[in-house]
Order: sequence, then C-alpha cells, then structure tokens
Amino acid sequence: MTETNWSVPETEVVQRVHERLDAAGTDVLATVVDVEGNAYRRPGAKMLLDDDGPGVGSITAGCLEDELRAAATGVRERGEPETITYDLMEDEADVWGMGVGCNGVIDVLLEPLDETYRPAVEAFADGRDVAVLTVLSGGVDGFEYGDRVYYDPDDGGLVRPDGSPAEEWPHATLTSMADDLARRGRADTVTVDAGDGATLEVFVDGIAAPAELVVFGTGHDVGPVTELAAKNDFRVTVAGFRGGLDLADRFPDATRTVTTSPGSLEDDLQLDERTHAVVMTHNFVDDRLALETLLESPAPYVGLMGPRERFEEMLDAFADEGRVFAEDALESLYTPIGLDLGGGSPYQIAHSIVAEVLAVENDRTPRHLREREGHIHDRVDAAADVGAGPTPE
Amino acid sequence: MTETNWSVPETEVVQRVHERLDAAGTDVLATVVDVEGNAYRRPGAKMLLDDDGPGVGSITAGCLEDELRAAATGVRERGEPETITYDLMEDEADVWGMGVGCNGVIDVLLEPLDETYRPAVEAFADGRDVAVLTVLSGGVDGFEYGDRVYYDPDDGGLVRPDGSPAEEWPHATLTSMADDLARRGRADTVTVDAGDGATLEVFVDGIAAPAELVVFGTGHDVGPVTELAAKNDFRVTVAGFRGGLDLADRFPDATRTVTTSPGSLEDDLQLDERTHAVVMTHNFVDDRLALETLLESPAPYVGLMGPRERFEEMLDAFADEGRVFAEDALESLYTPIGLDLGGGSPYQIAHSIVAEVLAVENDRTPRHLREREGHIHDRVDAAADVGAGPTPE
Repeated sequence: MTETNWSVPETEVVQRVHERLDAAGTDVLATVVDVEGNAYRRPGAKMLLDDDGPGVGSITAGCLEDELRAAATGVRERGEPETITYDLMEDEADVWGMGVGCNGVIDVLLEPLDETYRPAVEAFADGRDVAVLTVLSGGVDGFEYGDRVYYDPDDGGLVRPDGSPAEEWPHATLTSMADDLARRGRADTVTVDAGDGATLEVFVDGIAAPAELVVFGTGHDVGPVTELAAKNDFRVTVAGFRGGLDLADRFPDATRTVTTSPGSLEDDLQLDERTHAVVMTHNFVDDRLALETLLESPAPYVGLMGPRERFEEMLDAFADEGRVFAEDALESLYTPIGLDLGGGSPYQIAHSIVAEVLAVENDRTPRHLREREGHIHDRVDAAADVGAGPTPE
Repeated sequence: MTETNWSVPETEVVQRVHERLDAAGTDVLATVVDVEGNAYRRPGAKMLLDDDGPGVGSITAGCLEDELRAAATGVRERGEPETITYDLMEDEADVWGMGVGCNGVIDVLLEPLDETYRPAVEAFADGRDVAVLTVLSGGVDGFEYGDRVYYDPDDGGLVRPDGSPAEEWPHATLTSMADDLARRGRADTVTVDAGDGATLEVFVDGIAAPAELVVFGTGHDVGPVTELAAKNDFRVTVAGFRGGLDLADRFPDATRTVTTSPGSLEDDLQLDERTHAVVMTHNFVDDRLALETLLESPAPYVGLMGPRERFEEMLDAFADEGRVFAEDALESLYTPIGLDLGGGSPYQIAHSIVAEVLAVENDRTPRHLREREGHIHDRVDAAADVGAGPTPE
C-alpha cells in the first residue's frame, strides 16, 4: 500500500480529480456523506481512488483505506454509485489485534468518476463556490439514487450537469441550504419534501473556492509563510512592488506572483471578502502603500508585520496627508501580526501568521479548544459535586 | 546568490554548525548580539557562512545577507572575531531604490568557526541546555574581546572551551543570567562588574535543547503533525504500541520512532518537563494506556485527539479501576486537541495541534498578538481623547 498522497492539501485533491476526469480513466471518487461519533474527517472529505495509483486524499486516518480500495473495484466494475456504511465503533475484543482501531460510523458515497462531476471541478478551477447535490434515497417518482444537480451561488438555481435547469427538484429548502454550504465549504445530508408525501434524501456537498492569501513582500521570510499557507489550502499570491526578482522561482508554493505598483494594486489583485493579506515588505513606505489600498478593501484580514508603534507612525503619516480610516477598516488590521505562540524562528513566525489567518477565515476566536468547552476538571468537579453535595472553596 | 537554506529550522542550523566544525573548514558564524527597533530576528539568531556554500540560517529577512557574506570574507582572512553594527533605520530617499528596505539597528558577532564553539554543538547534540558567554568589550585586565566560556545548567559553573574552570570570570551575575537564558533559549548582552571599577560587556547566548514532541499513533494523520512539528524545532518521536509498521520510513521527519508497550513506556521515552505528547492512536484502549503514563509524568502538554466525551469515558474507565488523577495531572491535558482555528483538513488539524504545543512550550496564552497589546483603535481613540477631551459614549 503506497501512502504518499494521503496528506495533500484539499485543493490538490480537487485538482487531481480534475486531471483524472480529463484523462477519462476509470477512477472512483469516495466522499464522506455522514459521520456519527468520533471521526477524523467531516462530511465532504474526499479520496480519489485511481484505477492504477495509490489514491489521493483522506477519508479516515488510515482505518478504511484498504476497505475502500476493495469496494472501489466493485463500483468500477458495475459502473454504479454505492453508499457504504462503515461501523468503526470500537470492538474491545480487537484491542490487541492488528487493526489500527477507529471510532465512529461513517457513510461513504463511492461513485465512478464521470462527466457528471465536471461542473464541480470547473467551478473550483475558476474560483467559484459550488454545491453538488446528490440523491441518496431512490424510489421517489422521477428521482433515482445518484441523480445529481448543481447549485451555483452566483446564479441561485439548480442545474443538471449538462447545464439545463433542474425544475423538478424541490428548490426552496435545497437552494438556501446549498447556498450556505457552498460558501462555507461544508457538507450535510438533508431530507426534503418531494411532493405527494414522499421525501427525498439529498447530500449537499458545498465546495468553496479556496480563500486567497496575498503576501506583500519578497524577502526570504515570505517563503515559509507561502509554504505553510499553501499546505493549509490557501491560494497564495506573492506581490512585490519591484520587478526583476524572479518571484515565481523563489516562491514555488505560490499560486501566482505579481509585480504591481501602488496605482494598479486594486486591478492586479481583485481584493474581495475571501482575500486575506499579509504585509511584510520590511519597508515602511511600501507597507503603507499596500495598507492604503488593503484597509479600504473588503479583505477581512490584513496582517502587518512589525511592532504596533510602527503602524501608529503610519497612521500619523496618513493623517498628515488628511487620510483617516474608518473604525471598521481598522477592524481588519492585525498588528503585531500572528497569534501569540512565542516562537522566534522563521517557521515559528510563519506558523503563527498562518494560524491567525485560518482563525479569521473560519471566524474563530483563537484559543485552546478545551477552553471553548470549559476545562475538563471543571466538568469533573461539577459531576463530583452532584454526587457529594456542595464542596467548600 | 543561492537562497535554499535560509528558512531551515533552527535545530538544523546548529546541526550544520556541528557538521562544519567536524569538517574543519574556514566557515564564519554570524550571531545577532543586539537589536534595536524593528528587527525580524531576536538576539541569538544565527547564520553560518560556509566558505563555499550559500550559508544556512537567517539574521534578517534578506536585508543583510549580502553584506554579511562580504564581511565574512574579511573575518575569515584575518582569523579574528568582529562585531559589526548595521544601521537599517529607514532612509526615505531610498524608498524607490532597489534596496529591500529594513528597519532597526542590529549588532552581529562574526567569528571564525573553530574549536571554541564545540562545547555548544556537543551540548545541543546531547540534548543539554547550554549558554555561550563571549566578551564583547576588551580592555579589562585579563579579558580579551572574543574570550569565551560556557555555562552548563547541570553543573552550574563557568568553564573554558577546554573544560577547565573559568575562575577569574565574575560568576554571580553571569551564572544566574546564563541559567535562565540557557533554559529558555534566549540571548542577551549584560554589563558586569569586573573588579577595580572596570566593567565587562558579555554576550550570553542561551541555546536550549530542543523540546521533544512524542506522538502516540501510527495512522496517516501522524505525518502532517510530525512534519510541522519538526519545522517548528521540536525533536519528534513517533511511538506505536505495535511493531512491524516500518515507522521510520513512514515518518521521515521524526527524529526517532519507537515501538513500545504500556509497561516499558516510561523507560522507552524518558518523559521530562521538556517533553510534550500528542495522543492520536484512534484506539480507545491504546489512548488510555498512553494517557495513564503521560498524565503522571512531568510532561507539560498532553494533547488527546477526539471529542471531550471520549476522555470522560476514559476517566470513567480509570475510575472503575480505582485510578484517580490529581487535579494538576489534568491541567496538562488538552482535549479536544489543538487551537480553535476551524480547519478540517489533515494539514489544518496538524497546524492547530502544533500551534497549541508551541503556545504551551513558550508559556503563552494563544490569542491574536494585537489583543495582547490592546486593539489599535482603542489606542487611537485614547490618543484622540487626550487631544479632544472626553468624548461621549
């Protein structure tokens, strides 16, 4: 069992699906459609089972991959999709067996990769959010198991893989749900009313366009930020104000490199609400020129390297020019940049920056997950209190 | 100018210094000894200027590397150390020139790499904290610029590079400072009383042994955790309870791999207060067996993958066996594991885990650095208040 392609970024999984679709092979696509209990991945996680390769992507942490490969052979031969339920709830008797041991119940949709999946990969390649809607329960008049339509948030309607409107599908519930899931890149299964008292189970797989990270700067320290951001599924643009620096060679993990100027920055970068920016030119004036545009843009995250006093000097310089930023423009500014993790090496600095961008992108308050749920021994104490009555301080 | 070795982890820089010392070349070691203003790296940051290579490590984000290479040639020829001050405070006239632009004033010690540095790299290789003390001001009777002694926290004394006691050095201030800096891996310059009213300026460079991260588990998801932890300067041990899995091949970023059993876990792993642990076997019983030892160990961080309810079940199972953990044992437990960054891909999960370990290792409360200092517009508002008098709510 070859294992090299398990931990690729999600963006690469979708890109690989696109390539294999173009190659018109007989691959099988596996998608987690439902999860109960303690599973490693969420619904929507994908693994492509190449007809002749090791596969790419991950469904579990290694619990199911062999089983999936075997099941894929059957799906490939029959040419029909199939949903398989894997019950991984722990069997105590197996504790010292060789099984790696996993938890949870996972439903996986296995399907022959064919042209009905093309609108998803093309939307992804174009940087558009999309949702793939697949019927999981058959038997309702006019709907078969595996029937598929797409939701495009820009259009707002449901269309068949060939682009024709899917008028017979129940629109109201599905489009509002698909809209939300497509933008967030999340997936869920929903049961909808299909008329005449019948219900339809539909898997709604939202595939969000990857968020973009624009890194202003061309110093060595841009390298680790670019590398770690790409591994975390950002499309990374490295932007410099001066040409001739061979940016594409120096930052191989960047999706693109741009040599821009203050006047054309907006046109060159198409900043929107899915664009995040890190400003690290190490040049006071260059940083200011980048900020001037970024702070007025819809970018939800603008990180600025350097101590806070440096930004206060920039604000003074802006004020001298009569330039004052609205309060919500400063809401997007993160300086000093990064989460407070205490590291000082190039990779540690980059790790704290990318962690911060992830938190903002996902609208999270960065803190220990255990704090979000309350510390374990508070719960344990509380449980003990119930049994033993109030305890003194 | 070759740039490939700039962003290596710090551990690799020290390892490379060790290799080059063994090779007895004519390399030059550059160490940041002081920083004023806005610099990218802290004192103690190192760059090795090979006599025939591109160098390894980083002093700035690319602002000084060419100048350092030129200065190294002189140091190499003269065979004498030299401290050079680089004033990178911005020159506004250079804004549109080709300089990459940097801030701050940086003092760099350049020295021919020779046997006087061997105790530092050997301590590092042995996993011992060490401090290198170097005289930066000469002219005091008995002390020359560049004179060097070592502090070993286990011994508590100052010794010369040949191992003999450095009795003439002023011990009291230097040893307490060196002790603190060696353990924390930080560096600083101190002025000490050298007797007869004379003072001595000494650079104290603490080089802490890298912290260790033990990862319990052998699933695919261990790969990204191992990779990101190694980039962030942890020595990573991958530990499994079952043999025959070819762990070293599967986890090439691990410093070592161990097949252990519950009974020999403590002996195999030497858990101490610089050891952190991540438990991700995906097996309820294996996780419990690892936790049973880890929670009683001095390890400051024990992260457990899975929902919190799963650990509560473990506590119930422990309680059934009459096993109760002290409250401070549970202080080290982090479950669910990781910082709340919202990502769900293998790399995003690993990123949030390694970010959490870094924060605990460095004793930080994970949050936006801007929150630590108060949000910028609070300060701006406060400043405005001073000028304009109290503003209404």
